[in-house]
Amino acid sequence: MKVVKFGGSSLADGAQFEKVINIITRDADRRVVVPSAPGKRFSGDIKVTDLFITFAEKTISGADLSEIKQTILKRYTDILDYFKIEDATFVNMLKNELDQLNRIHYPSFDYLFAAFTGHGEYFNAQLLARILNHLGHPAKFVRPDTIGIVVNGTPRAAAIVPACYDTMQQVTLDDQVITVVPGFCAFDADGLMVTFSRGGSDITGAILARGLQADLYENFTDVSAIYTVNPNLVPNPQKIKTMTFREMRELSYAGFSVFHDEAILPVIETNVKINVKNTNDPSAPGTMIVPTSAVDEKTVSPVTGIATDARFAAIYIHRYLLNKEVGFTLKILEILAKHGVSYEHMPSGIDDMTIIFDKSLVSEEQIQAVCSEIEETVHPNELDLIPEFAIMMVVGEGMHVYHNAPAKILTALSDANINVGMINMGASEISLMLGIDTHKIDEATKIIYQQFFN
Amino acid sequence: MKVVKFGGSSLADGAQFEKVINIITRDADRRVVVPSAPGKRFSGDIKVTDLFITFAEKTISGADLSEIKQTILKRYTDILDYFKIEDATFVNMLKNELDQLNRIHYPSFDYLFAAFTGHGEYFNAQLLARILNHLGHPAKFVRPDTIGIVVNGTPRAAAIVPACYDTMQQVTLDDQVITVVPGFCAFDADGLMVTFSRGGSDITGAILARGLQADLYENFTDVSAIYTVNPNLVPNPQKIKTMTFREMRELSYAGFSVFHDEAILPVIETNVKINVKNTNDPSAPGTMIVPTSAVDEKTVSPVTGIATDARFAAIYIHRYLLNKEVGFTLKILEILAKHGVSYEHMPSGIDDMTIIFDKSLVSEEQIQAVCSEIEETVHPNELDLIPEFAIMMVVGEGMHVYHNAPAKILTALSDANINVGMINMGASEISLMLGIDTHKIDEATKIIYQQFFN
Repeated sequence: MKVVKFGGSSLADGAQFEKVINIITRDADRRVVVPSAPGKRFSGDIKVTDLFITFAEKTISGADLSEIKQTILKRYTDILDYFKIEDATFVNMLKNELDQLNRIHYPSFDYLFAAFTGHGEYFNAQLLARILNHLGHPAKFVRPDTIGIVVNGTPRAAAIVPACYDTMQQVTLDDQVITVVPGFCAFDADGLMVTFSRGGSDITGAILARGLQADLYENFTDVSAIYTVNPNLVPNPQKIKTMTFREMRELSYAGFSVFHDEAILPVIETNVKINVKNTNDPSAPGTMIVPTSAVDEKTVSPVTGIATDARFAAIYIHRYLLNKEVGFTLKILEILAKHGVSYEHMPSGIDDMTIIFDKSLVSEEQIQAVCSEIEETVHPNELDLIPEFAIMMVVGEGMHVYHNAPAKILTALSDANINVGMINMGASEISLMLGIDTHKIDEATKIIYQQFFN
Repeated sequence: MKVVKFGGSSLADGAQFEKVINIITRDADRRVVVPSAPGKRFSGDIKVTDLFITFAEKTISGADLSEIKQTILKRYTDILDYFKIEDATFVNMLKNELDQLNRIHYPSFDYLFAAFTGHGEYFNAQLLARILNHLGHPAKFVRPDTIGIVVNGTPRAAAIVPACYDTMQQVTLDDQVITVVPGFCAFDADGLMVTFSRGGSDITGAILARGLQADLYENFTDVSAIYTVNPNLVPNPQKIKTMTFREMRELSYAGFSVFHDEAILPVIETNVKINVKNTNDPSAPGTMIVPTSAVDEKTVSPVTGIATDARFAAIYIHRYLLNKEVGFTLKILEILAKHGVSYEHMPSGIDDMTIIFDKSLVSEEQIQAVCSEIEETVHPNELDLIPEFAIMMVVGEGMHVYHNAPAKILTALSDANINVGMINMGASEISLMLGIDTHKIDEATKIIYQQFFN
């Protein structure tokens, strides 16, 4: 049995729905389908989820709602029209529910936004089930709670309650009926609609793939595979046929936006393989994401992918005998926590440590405050702020086998006169992390791509 | 003005004393002399400090003390005899003080051991001053407290009270008299003799060099310079002419035993240069240890030295989304603290961290206990114990200038089929730390030495 998730662009309009339906019905193993909300139909279009956000904002501000409701409704009815389906009952149900949405009293704005945005998927799953049935493919819309998804956490960042996986294992799916479960949204213990963090349809798919013990989790999106490098830097780069969970995490850290971080966790924990595929090119094999145990050392390549990201800043602290002082790191961590600063890494040397931040998550004021307090509290011999630098992650389970990969990488960069300001390869030996000047990072990426893929 | 410290082998017997006295009197700037206790005269000999330890142990166990006292006294009187000096007053004073030593009531065994071991230096400084005077070189024995050294901490690991540096600055040295201050020992607020941690004569010298604002701190030992690599691995390796404090710390971390770690701190803080010289070859320039600001980028070499050490073990922890979890590192640190385990480094990757231990400081039981608790508390996806590996530190301020050094190093090792299991270069760019198999480390060291020094 396969759990099949479709992204927003795969369900943007009737034509895309048709492709999705063909994909679902072509393989009898595709029994559980998780649709996102309709995405953009063309450049400049607005995603349905964003329409729901506008709807929520207008509700809060007391603005007129008729136009936005109309716009939302039309996105769904246009799809029905594409299939020439008249279903007044269903359209009225959507209308009524839209009218209800802005009348309900929510415990908080967070609950309100969760309910509004979650309805993008909630409606789309019902629509998909409806159309499948109209076309003669027995299908059933199933609420996330009905199929056993239990969550806690906050309304807009729900967290799965792991115990529910056991309950889900008891669910018997009807072999003759396609089960359609909306992504992204869920219901909490009080029966209120909540959502996973944004991009959360991937999470729903992963939870179901795990809970229902799928053989494969197919994730349909709009690219034919994950590329070995950013295609904006290298034209037509090679595609990744197979990568491991670990490789994906390492790559996604530095700029590869393959999956929402949490999305992969449920399947990792039970080693369900993921197949990233393209709705617009479903016969392409896509990229398989597999557990480390599935790697064949005989055929593996040294490098699977190269990711780069220029979003970093760092504080460098040098203090003699730093490593002799019990609690030094602890003090630094406490200072960071006090100022609400989360760090990415903290590589340490003999007498120094470097604290690396994601600039998009930490303000300059916060970094300044942290610097001042470190200065006062631990009296470093040297404290430098590195305001910006890029990280290149060269990732490959094959580095275990091709031990010369780090040497080749550093030599290629050195030959091109590109300075590497930080080098880190952990005991796992599956990735080399390099700190590189922001204005040299694109050149560096091209060079390393050439080195391993051309 | 120079503060001049002599190690134990430089003062092992009369002939060595003669060399020391020649060194002191040849340079009128050598106004403050810090002697260690007499060291070994020949292979298999016993250092005077170790004789004092035996004396202390016999005192505690109530054994007969006459022989050990005799042995200790003879080490000092033999030196007088070498110079054909008869000084019954002084010898009687030593005798009486030895007799006192085992009669005093000490507040604790720690105080007892501090007093006994500290007397090795305490006697030797008096002897040196005495002989200098006999030979017509006006000299004065000065107690550490008299010259302004104030300490707190524990009896056998005294710590300097930094405020005393201000007082020391007021000390006026008599230009016509050589001031001799015993190394290693000091007196606490109650007037009891305490000691720095072992090897602490270096500390005394550094404290005086800083407090008395010396132009140079000369540290005389029994090697003509610090070598670029362990001479047991590479015959007649190049000597280091100049190195920075930072380089020394990085090298001393992995096996270079140049200085006691704390010894260098007082001089680092005021940038007093250190000259490591050889008592047996005083005209050799030795090695200068200087602040980073003294490095000339135009003449610097890429690598200053290579150190290796095989004393490490590590725990590797992999856990998906590790870096998303606030407080993860904190939890690990708490577990380490709870089991009294101090770690050396903690390099971190995207989803993993490696905790590196010094095997000589941590027992197998402790590591096992830490592993169990990490397993139970943080549920890692993977937890591996790497029971032993070696670290190679390739150190050089010149790496700032020769950016290709890491590439050259990794390529040389890769060409020799030596696998590097961990790579770390921090933002300071002065050292590359490599994790290497214990049984390959000697070969690796030779290869890198050839690369940069031949």
